[in-house]
Amino acid sequence: MQPMSQRATVKRNARRAEYDPAVMRSILRAQQVCTVAYVDDGAPQQIATLYYCDDAYMYLHGNRQSALLRHMAGGGEVSIGVMLVDGIVVARSGFHCSLNYRSVTLYGRGEPVTGDAHRRVLDQFVATLLPGHEQRVREPTPQELAATAVVRVGLDEMVAKVRSGDPIDDAQDLASDVWAGVIPLALQKGEVQPAADLRADIA
Amino acid sequence: MQPMSQRATVKRNARRAEYDPAVMRSILRAQQVCTVAYVDDGAPQQIATLYYCDDAYMYLHGNRQSALLRHMAGGGEVSIGVMLVDGIVVARSGFHCSLNYRSVTLYGRGEPVTGDAHRRVLDQFVATLLPGHEQRVREPTPQELAATAVVRVGLDEMVAKVRSGDPIDDAQDLASDVWAGVIPLALQKGEVQPAADLRADIA
Repeated sequence: MQPMSQRATVKRNARRAEYDPAVMRSILRAQQVCTVAYVDDGAPQQIATLYYCDDAYMYLHGNRQSALLRHMAGGGEVSIGVMLVDGIVVARSGFHCSLNYRSVTLYGRGEPVTGDAHRRVLDQFVATLLPGHEQRVREPTPQELAATAVVRVGLDEMVAKVRSGDPIDDAQDLASDVWAGVIPLALQKGEVQPAADLRADIA
Repeated sequence: MQPMSQRATVKRNARRAEYDPAVMRSILRAQQVCTVAYVDDGAPQQIATLYYCDDAYMYLHGNRQSALLRHMAGGGEVSIGVMLVDGIVVARSGFHCSLNYRSVTLYGRGEPVTGDAHRRVLDQFVATLLPGHEQRVREPTPQELAATAVVRVGLDEMVAKVRSGDPIDDAQDLASDVWAGVIPLALQKGEVQPAADLRADIA
């Protein structure tokens, strides 16, 4: 697979690059929070936020007055990072200790999402948090719809990096007395906590 | 508590701002991966990377030739985000569905870390991954030390945002038939996986 652009090419640790769009999409489907970097008056800014992806776009939403949403609705440039930490790589040397991870960087410009698509994508954000819940919640009010902007970035210029598996120690360290291996990490759900104001008959 | 600067002031959702340095430090201690945003030739860039904090600085490390490390070793400006997702907030309306989270944004300029501090901080990166492992690994080689740059940013201009607890639904939605509450999320360790090349007598 070829990189999508010069910018979307991994320069360091090129063996960890993944240019297969199917791999990139699988990483995007496995996470729901991204970090959006943009330039604000010449200075770097970043903000973590929920996202939703379909086959062609990544969608973000937020208060219509927020600096990020205004930047993106106006066509502003962004670099968006998605990161999944999969494990701690324990090597026999500090130099080879690492993390297992899957990451995607998406480059592009924002564009506003309006009309029917705006409403449809807002439902998808609810589904991203809890699949099916978008069919249970009440209808959004006109005020809520007006307050919430949706923007999107095409999935046209992105690159993934993946590290998986065992530590890669130097050959002369393999006889070491030091334990080596991987400690897996994953975001796990805990026991659900009903809201204090939930109706007693549905708690 | 007062904000540390105009820039380190939350404008949207100001009720979620945390300006207490003790709260910010506790969030920084609870995570180990940050996202560093910087401006590269006028365009936004971001990269996720491991960090280590002491009471005064956040430290990053990496290949001395990497674009980010060169930018920061030269005094370049960054905005660094740390994010912990604590739960899914399930509300009776889509508008009030949310995430529980703790985040910190740190603003500043990089500076190189050299000499004894360079070596000491590299040990701390190993300890960040697995406490105590820095005392078990072999000594770094001169080549490894030379290849790895360490930079730091002072913890002088930062701000936290925290959302916790139940959904906050509109009063008229409290009689709804829809379940509401929180689904906790946390990064959990799985069963350790010894390396395939680990000596059989220490596996």
